[in-house]
Amino acid sequence: MTPEFNLIATYFTRPTQRATLGVGDDCALIAPAHGCELAISTDTLVSGTHFFANADSFKLGHKALAVNLSDLAAMGALPRYVTLALTLPSINPAWLDEFARGFFALAESSGVELIGGDTTRGPLAMTLTVFGEVAAGKALRRDRGLAGDDIWVSGNLGGAAIALKHLQESAAIPKEHIESALACLHTPIPRNSLGCALVGVANAAIDISDGLIADLSHICERSGLAAAVNWPTVPQAPALRSVSPELALTCALAGGDDYELCFTARENRREEIATIGNSAGVALTRIGKMRAGNPHVTVLDAHGEPMNIPRAGFDHFTP
Amino acid sequence: MTPEFNLIATYFTRPTQRATLGVGDDCALIAPAHGCELAISTDTLVSGTHFFANADSFKLGHKALAVNLSDLAAMGALPRYVTLALTLPSINPAWLDEFARGFFALAESSGVELIGGDTTRGPLAMTLTVFGEVAAGKALRRDRGLAGDDIWVSGNLGGAAIALKHLQESAAIPKEHIESALACLHTPIPRNSLGCALVGVANAAIDISDGLIADLSHICERSGLAAAVNWPTVPQAPALRSVSPELALTCALAGGDDYELCFTARENRREEIATIGNSAGVALTRIGKMRAGNPHVTVLDAHGEPMNIPRAGFDHFTP
Repeated sequence: MTPEFNLIATYFTRPTQRATLGVGDDCALIAPAHGCELAISTDTLVSGTHFFANADSFKLGHKALAVNLSDLAAMGALPRYVTLALTLPSINPAWLDEFARGFFALAESSGVELIGGDTTRGPLAMTLTVFGEVAAGKALRRDRGLAGDDIWVSGNLGGAAIALKHLQESAAIPKEHIESALACLHTPIPRNSLGCALVGVANAAIDISDGLIADLSHICERSGLAAAVNWPTVPQAPALRSVSPELALTCALAGGDDYELCFTARENRREEIATIGNSAGVALTRIGKMRAGNPHVTVLDAHGEPMNIPRAGFDHFTP
Repeated sequence: MTPEFNLIATYFTRPTQRATLGVGDDCALIAPAHGCELAISTDTLVSGTHFFANADSFKLGHKALAVNLSDLAAMGALPRYVTLALTLPSINPAWLDEFARGFFALAESSGVELIGGDTTRGPLAMTLTVFGEVAAGKALRRDRGLAGDDIWVSGNLGGAAIALKHLQESAAIPKEHIESALACLHTPIPRNSLGCALVGVANAAIDISDGLIADLSHICERSGLAAAVNWPTVPQAPALRSVSPELALTCALAGGDDYELCFTARENRREEIATIGNSAGVALTRIGKMRAGNPHVTVLDAHGEPMNIPRAGFDHFTP
């Protein structure tokens, strides 16, 4: 057996329950449940771009899967399968063992089976493709927002962004908030239960990976609507309470990596949504309204006046 | 619009006919045809490992898709969808334009829709995930070989390996064969029509990406059988005719990147298989037999004597 096959056999082969065929052939074989469509998303994490080269590999295994599962959450799709393409500069058993442990811990708690992948030599990076099931025609799409919809977010925003600034030593946060902020950055919890519960209730949805304004802008563009966000209602990570108002604004509105859901829904769904939040164990907050108008996000201060907003969202190709 | 979104809009967004939802949301949405399973495969190509950093990007766009489609061919699955995760050191419009042209030329001729992906900044690499449809329970699996099966290969072998040695200046091939050998290496044609036609006819199948012996060994291991290959019957690339017998043996049996199919079938399928080869326009050659025994490939010379065979197959983590 060659090393590449040893690597897959040692770290990445687990029996599959649901898939017809998992790791070990030219292809995996799956079929979605009756009446369901497959939701599919793919995300790459590259060393030096998305994580530090010396990142804890257990947390990296978690995060690589979490950011992909978050895309399924945003569609309201139930996580089912994942493929993992891993590029490694060399074989480091301790690193791989921890990476696999972090990956499978989240995979198992999310009900996801690893059905295939690839291992190659090169600069450290990983591309995952996730597969979820959603009743045909019921997925939460970006283009389904309606004028008059409430805008909601789950959890709170800005924790990952302030943690990154803390690690880069460009911001100081109180000791008691460091751990929770770093958890937002390194081990985000994808909102899959929430996403599935919102099917048939929410209209449009997206996950907040690039910052609230950037991601809500995508709903605006796709739905052909404007959005107005009331800044005082935006739920902020606890670590933002003690930083400057400008920094809090930047982190909460333009910080990436939060992986909370932003969704829109009719006003008559408010009670139902509150119940869903309680069941899923996550705070859900109304932060604004969708309106007729050119696709654009306006942020309003406590007096209802438009604010100057920070640069909108993380982009890998912005110089 | 941010540069990443510009990049996707400019180069990688085409209307989808079959997918419910293509590029532009958190997930794509698809459903396999009634009675079909989805075959899924993922492969990464890394600059410096799988291709030269200065590789022609049109050919790279073709090859990145071709090597993935080849895995669908090996399962007998009809190509339907693909996702593309592209990691780029910078945005080079000329490079991207050619890459997209090469990619879409093959995608369109293969009936494949691009339904999603990711663009990230980092060392040049690409991970594709392909999706094909195959009638439930009918896929060509590695574990379905039977003792007494004929072993077949499509096309001829060793062209890509000798082309690589030519580029590395470690072997000389006659001028008249250089072009065809380089085409094997840079623009392989995946055997999808053949693979689909073999469903219900062949027993086990694999595509030859790591060399005939390495890949046939996988059928042996999965099927719990030995294989005997008659070297004089193995179809060799024309460029091998004028090189040393040792080099021809190495390239044809242990050279990677050929993307021909190797499959097994009962003896009473020979006529049917000859007809399938004619219809698909590809030579199909019987090269040996599957036998009861420990999983192992034996290569026999013209006198039926076992030969010493070269190192078996390409592995990214062999030092």
